Amino acid sequence: MSRQVPPSGPRLSEVLDSVLDTIAPLDAEAMARARERQDRLTKPCGALGVLEDVSVRLCGIARSCPPPVPAPAAVVVFAGDHGVHARGVSPWPQEVTAQMVANFVNGGAAVNVLADQMGAHVRVVDVGVATPLPDSVGVVRRAVRAGTADMTVGPAMTREEALAAIEVGVDTARSLVAEGYRCLLTGDMGIANTTASAALVAAFCGEDPSTVTGRGTGIDDRTWRHKVDVVREALSLHAEVVQNPQEDPVGVLAAVGGLEHAAIAGFVLGAAAEHVPVILDGVIAGASALVAQALSPLSIETCLAGHRSVEPGHVSVMHCLGMRPLVDLDLRLGEGTGAVLALPLVQAAARLLGEMATFDSAGVSESGVSESGVSETADHD
Amino acid sequence: MSRQVPPSGPRLSEVLDSVLDTIAPLDAEAMARARERQDRLTKPCGALGVLEDVSVRLCGIARSCPPPVPAPAAVVVFAGDHGVHARGVSPWPQEVTAQMVANFVNGGAAVNVLADQMGAHVRVVDVGVATPLPDSVGVVRRAVRAGTADMTVGPAMTREEALAAIEVGVDTARSLVAEGYRCLLTGDMGIANTTASAALVAAFCGEDPSTVTGRGTGIDDRTWRHKVDVVREALSLHAEVVQNPQEDPVGVLAAVGGLEHAAIAGFVLGAAAEHVPVILDGVIAGASALVAQALSPLSIETCLAGHRSVEPGHVSVMHCLGMRPLVDLDLRLGEGTGAVLALPLVQAAARLLGEMATFDSAGVSESGVSESGVSETADHD
Repeated sequence: MSRQVPPSGPRLSEVLDSVLDTIAPLDAEAMARARERQDRLTKPCGALGVLEDVSVRLCGIARSCPPPVPAPAAVVVFAGDHGVHARGVSPWPQEVTAQMVANFVNGGAAVNVLADQMGAHVRVVDVGVATPLPDSVGVVRRAVRAGTADMTVGPAMTREEALAAIEVGVDTARSLVAEGYRCLLTGDMGIANTTASAALVAAFCGEDPSTVTGRGTGIDDRTWRHKVDVVREALSLHAEVVQNPQEDPVGVLAAVGGLEHAAIAGFVLGAAAEHVPVILDGVIAGASALVAQALSPLSIETCLAGHRSVEPGHVSVMHCLGMRPLVDLDLRLGEGTGAVLALPLVQAAARLLGEMATFDSAGVSESGVSESGVSETADHD
Repeated sequence: MSRQVPPSGPRLSEVLDSVLDTIAPLDAEAMARARERQDRLTKPCGALGVLEDVSVRLCGIARSCPPPVPAPAAVVVFAGDHGVHARGVSPWPQEVTAQMVANFVNGGAAVNVLADQMGAHVRVVDVGVATPLPDSVGVVRRAVRAGTADMTVGPAMTREEALAAIEVGVDTARSLVAEGYRCLLTGDMGIANTTASAALVAAFCGEDPSTVTGRGTGIDDRTWRHKVDVVREALSLHAEVVQNPQEDPVGVLAAVGGLEHAAIAGFVLGAAAEHVPVILDGVIAGASALVAQALSPLSIETCLAGHRSVEPGHVSVMHCLGMRPLVDLDLRLGEGTGAVLALPLVQAAARLLGEMATFDSAGVSESGVSESGVSETADHD
């Protein structure tokens, strides 16, 4: 299966080339059967709304109808630090990234509580935390470097480091699928990562920094204006590469992205190659998915948007990815919390298609609405 | 505890009077402790969005902080038929109500699949199905009458029948709580019940029928216009009672409501008296909650809106009840499906407040944001 849109830019790594070549379109035949089956279930056509669309998508990904229930599920928290933190874009000290990694390992963070409830496994991957991590067996050590460099001074990382971090994500997805996981959820931790996300979204969606830069964990107006200026400065410094993001997505990632963005992009690509659905968390996942989309538009068909973040950049992300989020509860926490909250909804979509009775099997009369949606008669009794 | 707003209209039943006298305000002290605890959890203040509000509400209902996880849960499908069906407002034959009751008992409907996934018990209560039901032990037989009368000819039911159906709901809530259920979800089944719902919403929210009448299970433009006319005709026939719905909510219910609306209103009141949260399904539940609200404004504090229905009347309902739905997926099925989908979100809200680590317990540094929300310094490292 050859790649849909081969990047005309610089060469990628061998691993990445091979993954991109493996990603195939969704199975149109399974999706057609899913749509037909939805209309025979004991409910009015379309009455399950968005869940019907999700069920069709799951059939296309799994290449079968009804689809397997996407379980067991694993949420991966990719943790990395950001050199741009030095510019004062966040009120949180940088060591909070490492402290929260310890919290994830100890089970005390929001994502742990939610994953425990929803039956998802939590994996924590250090792809580039800057400060010392707890001495724990609970963290997968795959740090590419100790945090990125300040993107307003030079590239956040080298091209080779970006590719290495992408490969961490690919490997993580492959390992989880090999272990039997059948639904992969993205999570992230990295103080200042909404700043790098804003730069990525501005670049890939062609938006002004003021439109896509948000308040992250909660900053005042003055800090927000400064954060917008910082993003604008970085995009200006790297103008040559960010002007044509589709030409060299890895170059954009290296210039203004984060190590966890790179890993999540690789995670999306790896899952797509394995035909396993991915539930994206919020704006950090979305910014990462824009990189994956530029490398392989087909990979995005394997993704579902878990939730609508309050970060303004997420609106642009959803538009560019052509997605509608499943959960909309004003969350702005990251960690994978929005993805884990969406997990039961995604699993419900699969189960409804697989387990509901049909009009025939249940002996339920159908409505007088013809296929064109027009009533044949207004009243049947 | 005396009633907040004693209806000045006609007397109610002894059972209902006693329930209304039992309903108390939420526990403000437990809610204050919940808000304080939320701000000590390892996350930025407010980052869990709507789930923080839900957790505070659950503390107020349960009168403790953290709140018990709302489980086990039961969804009750109240089934009833509607005399207004004779006016041709639905393309579905009336016997589909009874057929779907059989489907619920046999486990083949959407609500069964979802309840099984989310760990909720399904109870089916016949509060007034018009056609013969399957000979099954799975249905709780509490029919008040065999469907309502046509509300465009006379009252849908007598005042006594409305009160009896309300009592079915009160009894059902009390029984479930006595059996150990700690979260009650509303469900409904009744061909043509979006027509009665539109009439109730128009009456209680003071809206024009064209604003609050929807397409139900899917009707064409001509049938929709006819449905609006039918609702208008009913409201006009019962103008005297519907003009002041807060004066005599039971009178409005008897004039243009359904038996399942009455039962759901009673269910909400019964749950409130027992301090157990209720997750409302869509527009039928919402229309019923308007009746409960008119009888006891306090009872609504015990309710959470499960989902946003595509029925236009639901917008008015949410406004009148002052609620924001948790799930927004274009569902229009009823049965309790939207409530059951919201169940894991409600349970998550309780678990997050109870189980997350605090900054102190996890050794995580706090941000430099002061209580006023203004950064003390822009950068802490």
